[in-house]
Amino acid sequence: MRPAENAQLALLLEVSGTPKPGNVDRDRNLSDLRYEDFLVGAVGAGRGLRAAETGPVGEAFERAVEGMAERHGRNSQFGALLLLVPLVRAASEGELSPAGAERVVNDTTVADAADFYRAFEHVAVFVSDPPADVDDLDVRRGAAAIPALEDRELTLADVMALGDADDVAREWTTGFERSFRVADRVGELSGPLSARAAEAFCEQLAEHPDTLVVKKHGEEIAREASRRVADAIGSRDDIDALAMEFVRRGINPGTTADIVAAGLFIALERGVEP
Amino acid sequence: MRPAENAQLALLLEVSGTPKPGNVDRDRNLSDLRYEDFLVGAVGAGRGLRAAETGPVGEAFERAVEGMAERHGRNSQFGALLLLVPLVRAASEGELSPAGAERVVNDTTVADAADFYRAFEHVAVFVSDPPADVDDLDVRRGAAAIPALEDRELTLADVMALGDADDVAREWTTGFERSFRVADRVGELSGPLSARAAEAFCEQLAEHPDTLVVKKHGEEIAREASRRVADAIGSRDDIDALAMEFVRRGINPGTTADIVAAGLFIALERGVEP
Repeated sequence: MRPAENAQLALLLEVSGTPKPGNVDRDRNLSDLRYEDFLVGAVGAGRGLRAAETGPVGEAFERAVEGMAERHGRNSQFGALLLLVPLVRAASEGELSPAGAERVVNDTTVADAADFYRAFEHVAVFVSDPPADVDDLDVRRGAAAIPALEDRELTLADVMALGDADDVAREWTTGFERSFRVADRVGELSGPLSARAAEAFCEQLAEHPDTLVVKKHGEEIAREASRRVADAIGSRDDIDALAMEFVRRGINPGTTADIVAAGLFIALERGVEP
Repeated sequence: MRPAENAQLALLLEVSGTPKPGNVDRDRNLSDLRYEDFLVGAVGAGRGLRAAETGPVGEAFERAVEGMAERHGRNSQFGALLLLVPLVRAASEGELSPAGAERVVNDTTVADAADFYRAFEHVAVFVSDPPADVDDLDVRRGAAAIPALEDRELTLADVMALGDADDVAREWTTGFERSFRVADRVGELSGPLSARAAEAFCEQLAEHPDTLVVKKHGEEIAREASRRVADAIGSRDDIDALAMEFVRRGINPGTTADIVAAGLFIALERGVEP
């Protein structure tokens, strides 16, 4: 399969993994986001993922987000696409490694950054306020922030470095460290890949408070969520109970899911069986 | 969404519907075919489905089957693709109606028929013996049957007319009658589209003995399966029990699923919410 196809498959396998406490999975919907929305998002993102094989990274990302949201208008996989697009490019250049991914990041331009901002016009993304000194670069400004980007000559890599309190942005500045770790881990686990994805999700969440949960509920709740998952690992009943509780409390570890999707893509490229 | 994207989404929604007695769904695998194989098949078929928008129907079908089977080597969606490819073309020509689909069928050529035969080289498909007088046209001969096709100047429409004991082939010769009926029906039902797909599957199976079941187990078992589903409709417990029994007995109504996938595509093109 081509890298764009493996990326699309990674999105489908990620959401099909169950149970993943707090997230949509094949057995659980949230009130405003359903399993079907992720199928729609994965299909719609296809065009952008194919563009990522050869075209500019920022434009490919914008197209992927546009396609993802075209039918349902929801943010099902924004963060996952932000990881997959540079990884698809690295794979398509034959160097799907931390160094290869870093090269893709370092090659990004101001035009890529502008397209990244345009992507925020297609869908509502939950983000924190930026630091006061970069207020004119608030992603929620969308295309209106582009003149400020151009004035400061910021590439997409620069923009990601500004956002490194977010664990998706952090992947961009660390050679996709956690994504590659997830790929190693799902390579070690056994069973269908979607089941391994759910296991890797729980392990990742246990180790790293989820940055989307931090933004929505604060550091303390995010740390609590990680602790609770760490205690539940090993008991399917406890994980299922936690899944119900997290959904009820609106604790939605979306960043962790994004990183697992990126890890699944790398694993699929390495030839792991779906 | 483009027709090819709606077709890919139809494949994903069809397999995600549950319970569908005897078939793979999001809660059930068969011993030799898993839910994940259908995700892989839907992703891999994308190339061929996109080709169906503008290129020759036979070649698009062959590419769709090749892509479907490329990763897992299994026949997850051969029949569904044989229905979706001409319907994608009709939609892309702006005439997704029985008449529009009939026109696509009537426009097929001997070259389309040759590519259809080539598709059988990518994957094992369960078929019956052909009548003795057309033995040289047995689809299991694959590309070896092409000289016989060319001698007789048979188009793909002609080949389908030879195979009308099969309900997928029959759709080709009847303006996709059942596919359009399923589309009407899922438009009337409520709930997520994958749940409507499962309901429509049971209703279709109750009305029509499945031709794949006929080929594998004979007319009598196929009629029994339809009668049992008809009796179980309305009780989730009875349908679930039947799903377990059919899987155990190898009763796998794959043709019915193919027709439901085609109906979902038509419904999606009409704007039904996934």
